[in-house]
Amino acid sequence: MTSHLTTPTQFVTANGIRYAYRRFGIESGTPLIFLQHFRGGMDHWDPAVTDALAANRPVILFDNTGVAGSSGETPDTVEAQADDAAAFVGALGLTQVDVLGFSIGGYVAQALTLSYPALVRRLVLVGTKPRAGDDTDRHPDVNTVGTRHDIPTLEDFQFLFFAPSPSSQAASESFWKRRHQRTTDTDPPTSKQTMQAQVAAIVDWKQPHGEPFAELATITQPTLVVNGNRDVMVPTINSYLLAQHIPNAELIIYPDSGHGSLFQYPDLFVTHVARFLDTAVAFT
Amino acid sequence: MTSHLTTPTQFVTANGIRYAYRRFGIESGTPLIFLQHFRGGMDHWDPAVTDALAANRPVILFDNTGVAGSSGETPDTVEAQADDAAAFVGALGLTQVDVLGFSIGGYVAQALTLSYPALVRRLVLVGTKPRAGDDTDRHPDVNTVGTRHDIPTLEDFQFLFFAPSPSSQAASESFWKRRHQRTTDTDPPTSKQTMQAQVAAIVDWKQPHGEPFAELATITQPTLVVNGNRDVMVPTINSYLLAQHIPNAELIIYPDSGHGSLFQYPDLFVTHVARFLDTAVAFT
Repeated sequence: MTSHLTTPTQFVTANGIRYAYRRFGIESGTPLIFLQHFRGGMDHWDPAVTDALAANRPVILFDNTGVAGSSGETPDTVEAQADDAAAFVGALGLTQVDVLGFSIGGYVAQALTLSYPALVRRLVLVGTKPRAGDDTDRHPDVNTVGTRHDIPTLEDFQFLFFAPSPSSQAASESFWKRRHQRTTDTDPPTSKQTMQAQVAAIVDWKQPHGEPFAELATITQPTLVVNGNRDVMVPTINSYLLAQHIPNAELIIYPDSGHGSLFQYPDLFVTHVARFLDTAVAFT
Repeated sequence: MTSHLTTPTQFVTANGIRYAYRRFGIESGTPLIFLQHFRGGMDHWDPAVTDALAANRPVILFDNTGVAGSSGETPDTVEAQADDAAAFVGALGLTQVDVLGFSIGGYVAQALTLSYPALVRRLVLVGTKPRAGDDTDRHPDVNTVGTRHDIPTLEDFQFLFFAPSPSSQAASESFWKRRHQRTTDTDPPTSKQTMQAQVAAIVDWKQPHGEPFAELATITQPTLVVNGNRDVMVPTINSYLLAQHIPNAELIIYPDSGHGSLFQYPDLFVTHVARFLDTAVAFT
């Protein structure tokens, strides 16, 4: 079976954009598409998460328009990024997928589900928030730390993705090692254009479209919402809000962890996500 | 192996109180003690929960002082009820247990953990709240419906424990059938004295002891906090508060469900609780 570390990067074209992607895991079952965080590419997932989930479904990582190994310019709204994600999925010939969106990838996952409801079977939203979410507890240093290096460092991620506790910081180092295990056929870094367009999309996502959260009530997909209890980037209360407003959503919040809780507790996260995706009825 | 339906009621005496209890499941492992909801006795748990958890640990149900089959008068504070629970556990010769507290049983579980920290290995808090919790979204009819019948009816539970949706109401009927499968060696109903003392304890639990929630920071046990997303009795936000203030707590909130979410999703609940109790490190 191919894996996170060994599967070759492939390319598929849609609307003139050449999308870089990697597919691995078993052949059968509903594919699970990963939608990545701010400035992240395919190499920035955790193989402890992706490979474990690939044991029972195809996993597909990809770079959205303009990101890392994909061509084009990254668009500056979440909705346009969702249109591109849908075009990519369509170009693969897939008619229904499961979606795991992390951080801004979770914004895109929501927009994708709202615009293309037939395309999405089940939805996993990690470290993310609804449009017009609650940024009250966002740490004031997030913007600086998130953009200060051309290639974000371990120290940047330790602040952005993990809690300050020794146990969470130790987990960050394990994650960092796992994340760098793939050393050939890797992505190029994401560009400044991508960063700027994603910042614009993030800023736009702060503005309500009509009644705040009302659109979430139209998401009918079974949804699993996950975060750490001390998220300095996308405050944890937003996960509570998502689960209160999406009609069929389960909420799981992990202790002593931040925005990157899925990278701190990969075993626990995979257990929860696998059960959610694998059961015939999501909640029973 | 004995089960929820077949295990005989036994008795043990501590401080002059004769406690009714039932023990079933496998012999080895840390016993899991259940602390029951307002006016509830041993017959009011769900065998789909208790028997499934008993597959990998001893399960112990009991009636606290004055409740149903136990002698004495129910005391009117949560802390006194926790003292009695500790006396019961000690009378069984147990030095460390896991505790699952539901509703007022979750208040008692918190007080037990705070007063007898060495006695508790891991803590499961379901449909409950911290002292001085947030009752803003409590439904105004809860007090009336919760006390209007000498023996609470299915209709009472449908309002108090389940969400108004057809799916949640259907789950209430399945629960009700399971709950009545044990037909011999059952508990007597709880008395009006127990109801009044528990009401007094619930009212007292609304008052802070010093800085609200500060005592939760001293709970060092791994803790799993669970509720439904539409709890009319103990508003769901209280589960979020518990998990934010207990240092090593995971939060799980189920969709389309109320106070009795553990009875609506017994399989999912058991999966979550079993993993939490069975892993060498609670969160990994």
